[in-house]
This record gives sequence, C-alpha cells and structure tokens, in this order.
Amino acid sequence: MSFGQRHLLGIEPLHPVEISTILDLAEHYVSLNRGASKHGDALSGLTQINMFFEASTRTQASFELAGKRLGADVMNMAMQASSLKKGETLIDTALTLNAMHPDLLVVRHPHSGAVDLLAQKVNCAVLNAGDGRHEHPTQALLDALTIRRAKGRLHRLSIAICGDIAHSRVARSNILLLGKMENRVRLVGPPTLMPAGIAEFGVEVYEDMAEGLRDVDVVMMLRLQKERMDGGFIPSEREYYHRYGLDAEKLRAAKPDAIVMHPGPMNRGVEIDGEIADDINRSVIQEQVEMGVAVRMAAMDLLARNLRAAPKEVWA
Amino acid sequence: MSFGQRHLLGIEPLHPVEISTILDLAEHYVSLNRGASKHGDALSGLTQINMFFEASTRTQASFELAGKRLGADVMNMAMQASSLKKGETLIDTALTLNAMHPDLLVVRHPHSGAVDLLAQKVNCAVLNAGDGRHEHPTQALLDALTIRRAKGRLHRLSIAICGDIAHSRVARSNILLLGKMENRVRLVGPPTLMPAGIAEFGVEVYEDMAEGLRDVDVVMMLRLQKERMDGGFIPSEREYYHRYGLDAEKLRAAKPDAIVMHPGPMNRGVEIDGEIADDINRSVIQEQVEMGVAVRMAAMDLLARNLRAAPKEVWA
Amino acid sequence: MSFGQRHLLGIEPLHPVEISTILDLAEHYVSLNRGASKHGDALSGLTQINMFFEASTRTQASFELAGKRLGADVMNMAMQASSLKKGETLIDTALTLNAMHPDLLVVRHPHSGAVDLLAQKVNCAVLNAGDGRHEHPTQALLDALTIRRAKGRLHRLSIAICGDIAHSRVARSNILLLGKMENRVRLVGPPTLMPAGIAEFGVEVYEDMAEGLRDVDVVMMLRLQKERMDGGFIPSEREYYHRYGLDAEKLRAAKPDAIVMHPGPMNRGVEIDGEIADDINRSVIQEQVEMGVAVRMAAMDLLARNLRAAPKEVWA
Repeated sequence: MSFGQRHLLGIEPLHPVEISTILDLAEHYVSLNRGASKHGDALSGLTQINMFFEASTRTQASFELAGKRLGADVMNMAMQASSLKKGETLIDTALTLNAMHPDLLVVRHPHSGAVDLLAQKVNCAVLNAGDGRHEHPTQALLDALTIRRAKGRLHRLSIAICGDIAHSRVARSNILLLGKMENRVRLVGPPTLMPAGIAEFGVEVYEDMAEGLRDVDVVMMLRLQKERMDGGFIPSEREYYHRYGLDAEKLRAAKPDAIVMHPGPMNRGVEIDGEIADDINRSVIQEQVEMGVAVRMAAMDLLARNLRAAPKEVWA
Repeated sequence: MSFGQRHLLGIEPLHPVEISTILDLAEHYVSLNRGASKHGDALSGLTQINMFFEASTRTQASFELAGKRLGADVMNMAMQASSLKKGETLIDTALTLNAMHPDLLVVRHPHSGAVDLLAQKVNCAVLNAGDGRHEHPTQALLDALTIRRAKGRLHRLSIAICGDIAHSRVARSNILLLGKMENRVRLVGPPTLMPAGIAEFGVEVYEDMAEGLRDVDVVMMLRLQKERMDGGFIPSEREYYHRYGLDAEKLRAAKPDAIVMHPGPMNRGVEIDGEIADDINRSVIQEQVEMGVAVRMAAMDLLARNLRAAPKEVWA
Repeated sequence: MSFGQRHLLGIEPLHPVEISTILDLAEHYVSLNRGASKHGDALSGLTQINMFFEASTRTQASFELAGKRLGADVMNMAMQASSLKKGETLIDTALTLNAMHPDLLVVRHPHSGAVDLLAQKVNCAVLNAGDGRHEHPTQALLDALTIRRAKGRLHRLSIAICGDIAHSRVARSNILLLGKMENRVRLVGPPTLMPAGIAEFGVEVYEDMAEGLRDVDVVMMLRLQKERMDGGFIPSEREYYHRYGLDAEKLRAAKPDAIVMHPGPMNRGVEIDGEIADDINRSVIQEQVEMGVAVRMAAMDLLARNLRAAPKEVWA
C-alpha cells in the first residue's frame, strides 16, 4: 500500500492513490467493527491525544472509538477548559503536549490554518479534525467511502453539494476529493452562501435545486451553519427550507437511484425533510457515521505505520 | 445461569430467577474487586458507551469502572454539551451512536420512558442508568445484593423505604424488586411526597416514622430530590428532618439489628443524621457503593453473553 | 530500591534516598516514553482515579497518560460537576470513591491540607497533585529530574526561585526538595509576594533580580498566580515584567551555562521573555513537561509495589 504522508492535514496534498489506500484499508475496518470482537492492536503501544478547541461530540467520539479499538492509549483534552484560559498560546499548548510524546494528535480548531501551524511544531503525526472553513479531511474520506460502497465506484459520478457552501469545510474537502477522483461536482445554494472564487475549483454552480439536482447520482446536503454566520445574511429557516430543503419533490429531479447524504447533526425541516432522512432506500446518513469510524481507524493505522518505519528525524 | 433479556431497562420485566442470576454473578465480582488485580476480560473486544443526559458523577463512575475492569473499550459522552444543543433529536443521537456499533449503551435521561424508546431504535444492549421517575434498575439490584449479604437472604424481610417516594425512581425500582422477591415493603413519608395509586403495588403506607419503622429489618432512606420538585410542596429542611430525618431516636423502632441504607449523595442533617450514616454497625451505605460496581459488572457480563450467543437479527 | 511511603502527599516526609529512588526509576520511564512502544504493565490490573477539584489540563493529562501507559484502568472525575454540588462533603465523596476500590487516587484540591485529610479516610495510595499553597510534590520531583539531567547532579547547586513565592505550592515543594538534597536556594521577588516566616527554611531572600541571580546554576521562574491573590497587592503586568520578568539582560547575572525553568502555563511577557523561553540552549521548559510524565509513572509504580507487597490492613 502506498501512503506517503506524515500528517493528515487536508485532502489537498493527497494523491488519488493515497485516497484509495485509505478507503481500501477502511473496508477492512468496516468488517472488524461489524464483527463480534472489535478490538485490534494496530496502535498498541502508541498514544493518541484528541485536542478539540471546538466542541464536537460525534467527531471526537468517532476518533476516540477508532483509537481505542486499535489499542492505543487515548486521551481527550477539553481545550475550552484548559490552560488557554490562563493565557497560554496555541503553540505553547502544542509544545507542552508534544513533550508528553504522543504519536497521534487529533486536532479541531475554529481557525483555518491553525492545525497546519501546529503540525509544524510537533514531532508526532497530526490529523485535522476540522479547522475553520478550511478542511475536514476525514469527513470527505468517509463520504467517499460511503459513495463508493453505494455506487460501486468513486469516479465519473455526478454529485450535488447543496446549501451553505460558504461556511463549510466539509464542502471544501469534498470538492477537492471528488475532483481528484474525476467526478462532476455541482454546488447548489443561494449566491449569499456561495464562496467567492469558487469557479477555479472546476465545479458547476446552481442557484436552483431543480436544475442543480437534475440526474445526479449523489445529493449531499450540508448543515446550515448558523453559528458560523458572523453578521451578513441569515436566511429564515422556513424560507430556506422552501427553497433549499431536500424533500421528495426536489429529490425527484435526481436519478431514481440517487443517494442522499448529510454530515450531521441534521436540522430536520430546515435542510432536509425528516422522511427523506429516514428513508433507508435513499438515505445513507447512518452509514456515513459508520464509515467515519472505519476511515479514522484506517488513517491512524497508516500514519502509525509511517511513524514506525521512519524515525522522527527523517520528517523533521 | 438463566438471564433471558436483551436489555436491562427496568426491574419490571425481570423474573426472580433473573434477579438471582445477576446477584450471584455479582458476588464473584465483589471478590475480584477486592483482590490485588481487578481486571478481567469478560467484555474484551466490546465497546461500551455511557450517554448521560443528566449529570451523575457516581453512577457514571460506577459503570465506567465496571466496563474498564472487564476489558471493554469504554467511552463517555457528555450529552449536555452535545449535538442536542445543535437541535438534534434524541432518536438521531441514538441512531448516530448505534452506527458506531457499540455493544453496550448505558443511558441516563431526565424523562421517564426515554431509555425504553431509545432501546427500540438500536441494535446493541441498553442499560437504563435512571430515567425520570420511572426506573433505576441497577440501583435496586445493588440494594438487593447489599441486603442479601447483610441479612443472609432476600425474602420475607420487612423493609421500610422512607422519604420522598413520589420523585424517586430508586423507590420505584426497589418496590418492584423487593415485591418480586416476596418481601414486605412499607413506604413512610408525608402524603405530599407519596405517589398517587401506590396502593396497587402491594405496599403498606405510613405517615409516621415511629409506626413505619416498627420491627423492620431494613431502613432505606431516600434523598430529598429538591431538583425534581416542580412547584407544589417543598418542605423546609429543618421541618423535614424533625419529622422524617433518620436519627438514633427514630431508628429505635426498628429491629435491633436493622441495617440503614441510602443511595447517595446524602444530605446529612436533612434525610439522615451524620452519626447514623457513619455507624459501621448499622449503616451499609459504603457497601452499597461497592456492590454497585459489582452489580454493573454482572449485568453487563450477562448482556454481553446474550449478545455473543444470539446474532442481532434474532432480537430485532 | 527503597521507597517506604504509602502515599505521596508532599516532599516534606521524603528521605533523600526516597527522592533518588523516584528519580532513578523515572529515568527508565524517560527511555520508555521516547521509544516506539510506550506501554508497559506495571499498573496492570489496578485502578487509578483522578479527582481534580481544581481544573488543571496539563497536570491531569500528565497523570492520565502516566497511568494509561503503565496499563492501569484510569478514570477522571470532573469534581466541579459532581455530587459536591448536591451538597455532599469532601469526606463523603472520598468514602464513595474508596468503596469502588481504587488502588491509586490522584487528588488536586484548592485547600491546603485537604489531600492529607482525604488520605486518612481511604484504603488506597493517594498522590497529591497540588493542594492550595501547601505542596505539589510531583512538580518538585520533575524539576529535580530536569536539573539532575541538565547539571549532572542534584546537590551543591545554586538555584534561584523567582517571582510569586507566597502563592506558590510549586515553590514550597521545591524549597523542601532542593534543601534536602543540599543545594543553596535563593528566593527572589518583591517583599509583598514573599511568604512570612520564610527564613526558617534556610533560604536566602533577595528583592533584586541582578543580585538574586548572581552566579546561580538554575533560574526557576514561577507563574504569577493572579487567581490566588485575594485582595492585597496585585502588581501591574508591565511593572512586574520590568522588575522581575526574566529577559536576556537579567539572565546575564547567572552563570553562563545556567538553565531556565518554568512550571507552565507561561505568561509570556509577564514572568518571562518569549525569546528566553524558546532558547533551546538555556530553556528546559519542554523537558520539564516530559520529565513530568516519567516522574509520575515512577511514583505510581513505586506506590503500587508497596500496595502489592503489604496488605491494606498493615497500613490502616
């Protein structure tokens, strides 16, 4: 297998072969997690620290379970309650943790670029669990695995990403990954929630759901990130649902076997109709969560193999 | 051993033989916990998730220790700080966790019935760690084990449950368990803290402590649950202690070898006199805590055996 | 090896040979932590509970990692959110935990003496992780190991402890340890931050940094503990930095090879200039953190050996 990275900071630096390597290994972990005994030793003897500067129950839980099931010693740091309050800088916090010799550092941070900065200061492998509006690579990887399993392939698919693109690192990582794998990506949403300069990513932009979803294989809904909207346009939920919320009517434009995705947590009746979300013939939302644990196990396993193969000095 | 349940949602569905099965296995874990090495492998390879929608340091700690000592991968979810804040429903949260393939889900929730509802939506074994005013089965089981060890039997005993019965799931689960095992249960407390329709449970009701405690084998005090009293009658602590607080004087009505119990945390000087609580000849309050870990180990062990014996499909 | 303590409550009761015993074993764990696999079994089968009544991300993390790497079942109790809120006393909380049969109890508490009191009530080994202004023994031990490694010895050194001595348990434990090992300790700081009756500890007191640092081997800066200053004199940060903040100019008074220490978290530009803190030729601040994990592993390992060698009854 070929995975040449020291860190997993984003989808951007990954080669398509590296993406496939993670997904292939993740398939193995899907089976493990479905079995009677779901504990391995790929990370045994290693220390994983989860540093979440932004609360995220589900992503943290997914990484925590992934590490524990692979036999790592896992420690969660509640960074809101931490030394940061006492005036310590991000870098000092990182150096302090680094001195405790973790092998894997999983970091979520509200500022774009903070995780990359931190990765330059430490000796261990860093996994980006979401930084500002920048990247959320394991989300894009779990979405890719979900799509590949449902559609039998991860190329030449037509995929619509819908809703609040501007505030979404999930959208950004997905656009990068799906582009690298040679899919056709459409962005659908109001112009106010579309990021500037999006054209350069080689995507098609639609303002209308009926047009945007026409004949797509995959409908990927996004969470309306009200908490990230500092000032500016905030749509009313009713108006938003009317125009962009996914319901049976709007879904009819897509292919008859199109799948429906959502990164969670869902606002039912805002981005998505509850019945669509629960329709086991269309919705793969629960499977996305399942793939999340498997993809994180695969990513940490591959990074740990690289750590073991090469002394730290080689990377530094 | 005979334990035919998929979940442990309450005392109500349990057969007396199943209660004895849990208590017998718990005796084994009492010994393990008192030994030099207190780590086994009954849950090794399994994942336990603790979901506490209501804070409870001691119950969560007891379940956490129980799972870790049996070799499970244990994860705590602080549900107050969770996706629920972002508008996710209880069911969506449950389905999300379920997709991560836990084997054992320990749930506390402020609403009666919420844990049963949740159990219908997931594939794993669910343990009720307290739901509203409904049930708290592991508390009743640990109380039963404590009584059985102190009195040498768990039948034909006379047991007084005293205080705030109306707001207490501890009382409710104990009434059910002690009744099933053919004991005589008395409820003692002010009429305002006595639930409606209590007569149908086959208990005797007393308003006066001296009468209620006469010749009983066990005095079980309850915590005054001020946090659950929404409106209505709230007694002053001084008045309450005068009439219902257990002190040496009131205890004299019970049998000379009657034991004193309290589920904790105690309000010393409100429900119980500090000296009685600390009297090692009468009080078994610390032993209740010890039995708590053992009973939870036994319950999770039995549920895990059932999980392993029968594929999930059989239950669904 | 000779370590005759049941608890690690402070430096005061330790014999110099016991201090050396901890440091020697810690050297072994420094190597383990730097290796590819950092998981041992010295604490396997044992239960460690961390009870922090005062938040401390880095100290708690250090103890948690130490225990997990040694194979203990480790549980963190967030005591702020605990039963204490429900009116339970410190002693009741301690007795409750004790009934769960932990082997190692790590306690931080805002009140001096609280940890000693608690240790008298429980059957397990207690480690003081900082109590009020009293002691913080593992901090003094990690500082000692850092000094011994940098200077090649831990005796006949001249060491300046600078800043807010009055509010610092770190200073107090260090003064005791460095005195026992026959070093020359100087305290440097404004008279308002110097504790009463300090003379009896056999230290020299300086008000001026240039004089206090003259020819010392070690400069140990303290954190300005504004959160502990109840009323009284609070210096302005600018004024404080001007007179007592360590910068290149002030450091020139010390020996050319003097090392710079800080227990963290640092207030850069208040107690210490950022460039000095980051100067890898002078600052051993990151190494202090690294030694912290190793020293805690050593201390818990030694206490566990004593637990195993002697039944609890012997101690009680």
